[in-house]
Amino acid sequence: MYGGALMAEDYRKMWEELRIDLEAHDGLLGVLPPLFSDVFLSQEGRPARMSYFDYVFSEVHGLRIQELVTHKDKGGIVVGTYCTYAPDELIMAANGISVGLCAGADVAPEAAMEFLPANLCPLIKSSLGFKLAKVCPYIESCDLLVGETTCDGKKKFYEILGEMQEVHVMELPQKKGDTDREMWKSEVRALAARLEEVSGQKIDVAGLKQAIKVANDKRRALLRLSELRKSDPPVISGRDALLISQIAFNDDPRRFTVKLNELCDELDKRRAQGKTIGGPARPRVMVSGCPMALPNWKLANVIETSGAVVAMEEMCTGIRYFRNLVDETPNDLEGLYDAIADRYLKIDCAVFTPNTERIENILGLVRDYDIDAVVYHALTACDPYTIEAYKVQKALEDAGVPMLYVETDYGDDSGQIATRVQALLEMVD
Amino acid sequence: MYGGALMAEDYRKMWEELRIDLEAHDGLLGVLPPLFSDVFLSQEGRPARMSYFDYVFSEVHGLRIQELVTHKDKGGIVVGTYCTYAPDELIMAANGISVGLCAGADVAPEAAMEFLPANLCPLIKSSLGFKLAKVCPYIESCDLLVGETTCDGKKKFYEILGEMQEVHVMELPQKKGDTDREMWKSEVRALAARLEEVSGQKIDVAGLKQAIKVANDKRRALLRLSELRKSDPPVISGRDALLISQIAFNDDPRRFTVKLNELCDELDKRRAQGKTIGGPARPRVMVSGCPMALPNWKLANVIETSGAVVAMEEMCTGIRYFRNLVDETPNDLEGLYDAIADRYLKIDCAVFTPNTERIENILGLVRDYDIDAVVYHALTACDPYTIEAYKVQKALEDAGVPMLYVETDYGDDSGQIATRVQALLEMVD
Repeated sequence: MYGGALMAEDYRKMWEELRIDLEAHDGLLGVLPPLFSDVFLSQEGRPARMSYFDYVFSEVHGLRIQELVTHKDKGGIVVGTYCTYAPDELIMAANGISVGLCAGADVAPEAAMEFLPANLCPLIKSSLGFKLAKVCPYIESCDLLVGETTCDGKKKFYEILGEMQEVHVMELPQKKGDTDREMWKSEVRALAARLEEVSGQKIDVAGLKQAIKVANDKRRALLRLSELRKSDPPVISGRDALLISQIAFNDDPRRFTVKLNELCDELDKRRAQGKTIGGPARPRVMVSGCPMALPNWKLANVIETSGAVVAMEEMCTGIRYFRNLVDETPNDLEGLYDAIADRYLKIDCAVFTPNTERIENILGLVRDYDIDAVVYHALTACDPYTIEAYKVQKALEDAGVPMLYVETDYGDDSGQIATRVQALLEMVD
Repeated sequence: MYGGALMAEDYRKMWEELRIDLEAHDGLLGVLPPLFSDVFLSQEGRPARMSYFDYVFSEVHGLRIQELVTHKDKGGIVVGTYCTYAPDELIMAANGISVGLCAGADVAPEAAMEFLPANLCPLIKSSLGFKLAKVCPYIESCDLLVGETTCDGKKKFYEILGEMQEVHVMELPQKKGDTDREMWKSEVRALAARLEEVSGQKIDVAGLKQAIKVANDKRRALLRLSELRKSDPPVISGRDALLISQIAFNDDPRRFTVKLNELCDELDKRRAQGKTIGGPARPRVMVSGCPMALPNWKLANVIETSGAVVAMEEMCTGIRYFRNLVDETPNDLEGLYDAIADRYLKIDCAVFTPNTERIENILGLVRDYDIDAVVYHALTACDPYTIEAYKVQKALEDAGVPMLYVETDYGDDSGQIATRVQALLEMVD
C-alpha cells in the first residue's frame, strides 16, 4: 500500500514546514473521523476492498502529503487544480503530481468574506477559506495552481488567489465550434509550456504517451466501477462510489487504479454470488449537477439513509470526470496535445452554451442505469447549474422521470433535504 | 421632435397588435410617472433642455414604439440587445433599429422563477419577467435578439429566452489576447451575416461607414456631456445624466445626438454664467459597477438627495457605453469589421480576466472628475462585479478615496442605503 507510515510527530513537523496553522488544522482533522464513521463505516456489508479508500481518506493530510514532499525533494513539482478541465496528463508528463483543491467544507468563512462576496458558491468560498486558514497541506505544497475560465465565480476568484500564489489560468471557450477548439488547443499548449518552465523539464512524446495511458487507465477503472453500479440490487453504495471519485483527484493515479480494479474484482464476485449492499431493491437515484468536493457527502448520505441508492453521479466528482478517454494513438507531440484538447472539450459542463450534450447524456444515463428519480444538486449561487436545471427538469419530465431540485451549500440542512427526498421517493416507490 | 403624437386609443391598438397584456401594461405605466416626478421633476433649476429627455421617457412605450412599427412597415428590422457588447453599427447598417432590453424593475418575479433560480441577478430576472408578463413592447417588436456570452447568468438565460424568440448569441472571449481578438472578429462577422439574413439586406461599405459615424457621433455627444460634468459646482445632476445614458439605448441615435448637443450648448452657457444645479459645491461621487437599466434610479437618487452629486457613472449605463470610438478611417468591409471588433473588445467589463484596465480607468476617472468618494453598485448575485469589488476597493484605498460597497436589487432598500451613503459622505465632507 503506502510506503512506511510516519509517526504523528513527523506529520506535525511536515505540516509546520508547509506553514500549516497546526491548531486550526487539528480542529479540522478532529471533525472528520466521526463524520466519516457516521457516513461510511456505519454501512452494513461494505465490500472489504473499500478499506483502501478508507485508509487513503484517513491519511489524506498525512501519508499523501508526505509523498508530495518526497516527490518535490526528488525534483518533481506539485500542481493544484480546481476543475475537471485541468489536463492531468500534461502535469504528469512534466514530472508533476496533480492534486485537486476544491474544498467541500466551510472553513474560515469570515476570512474569505474579506475578499469575496457573501452570496457566492460555497465551493469557491471554501477554497479560499482553506488557503487563508492555512489548513490545506495540498495547496501549500503546490508549485503552480491551474485554473480555467469556467464560471464567473472561479474566473474572478483566480485573480485574487493569484495575489497569494502562482496561478496559471487557461481560457476555456464558452461554445464548442471550430474557433473554440483552436483556442482551446492553443491553451493546452500554453499550459504545457508553463509546466515545462515551472518543472524545468521538457514534455516528450514517450512521457506524454505514458501519462495519457496512466490517466486513461484510471478512467477505465472508474468506468468499470460505474458499469458495476448498474447491478440491481446494488453491489456498492453511492456514498462509497462518491468517496472513490473524490479520492481520485488526489491519490497516486497508478496505485489508485490498481486498488480500484481490485475492488471491482471483488464486486464482480459479489454480484455473481448475489451479495448486495443494503438489502433488497430500492429506488435508484441519480445525483446530477454541481460537484461534491471532499468532505461533502451530505446529499448522498441523506438519499441513501432515506431508503434509496445513488446509482450514478452526473457531476464532476462523478462521471463527468472520467467519461471520456484521450486518444492514445498519436505518436507526435502535436497530435497528443490535440488529442488532449479534444478530450477535455468533450466535458459537458453547464458553463458551455448551448449545452444540449449534457441533456442527452443525462437521458442516456437515466436509461442505462435504470434511474427512477434524479436529485439535482445545485450549489448556492452557481448560475450555470442552477439555470441549466430548467432544461434538465424539462427533459426529465418528458422522459417521465421525476426530479427534485436541491439548492444547498455546506451548512447543515440535512433535515429539510431529507423531508423533500422522502417525498420524492414516495412518488417512485 | 417626434412625428405627430398619437392618441391614447391608437397606442392601445398598437400594443394589442404587439400582443402586449394591456392590463398588466397599464399597471406598469401607472407606476412610472409619480416615480419619475419624484426623482427628476422635483429637482430645482434643471436645464430647460432636459425636457426632451423627459418627453422621450414619457413616450418610451408610445411614440418610440410607433417609430419601430413604422420602420418595420417600411421593411426595416428591430433588434434587441442586452449588453454594451452588441455592435449597434452592424444593426444600423443592416437597416435595423437597435433597442436595449435590459430591465430595471421587478416585473412578474414569480413567473420568472418558473424558469430561473431565485438567487440570480435582478436584471436578468427582470428581463425575463418583462417578456413573460408581456409588458415590453420593445421585445415584442424585435425580429432578432442579440446576446453575448458575458456572464454566466446572461449566457444561460439566453438559452431559455431562445425558446421564446430568435436569439443570436455572440461568443465574447474572456481574455484579450491575440486568439481572443481573432475569435471576436469572427463573431462580429457572424453577427453581420445573421443580420443580413434577418433583414434581407446586405451590409455595404457606405452604409456601415455611415452607421459608424452615427454611433460615434452619439458617443461624442455623451462624452461632451461627461466633460461638462467636470464642472464644480455641477451644471447637471447625476440623475439627469443617468437618464440620458439610459435613453441612449432606445432613442433614435441621430435625434438623440442633436438633442444632447443642444443640452450641452445650454450647459456651456450655464457654466459661463455660473448657473449651477443644487447650489454650492458638494461631495463628488462616482457610481461604479453594475448597470442601472430603466427605471432603476434608486442609488443615484439616494446619493443626490443625501447632499452629494454623482459626477460620473463607471457603468454600462454610463461611460463604459461610450468611452471608446470606432475607427472611422477604413474603406473596406473587412477593415470596418475589424475596427468594430477592436472597439467593442476595449470595453472593460468585469467578465474579463484579468481586468486591470478597469482599475486603471477607475483611477483615471477619479482623478479627472475630482471624485471624493465611490459608491460601488453591485447587483445581487452578479459575480463578476461583486468579486471585482475587492480589487477596486484596494486600488481606491491606495489612492486615498473611500468606497462604499452597496449590494442591492430592485427592492426598496433606499432607507438602509441612505444611512450608509450619509456615513460615507460625512467622511469626505
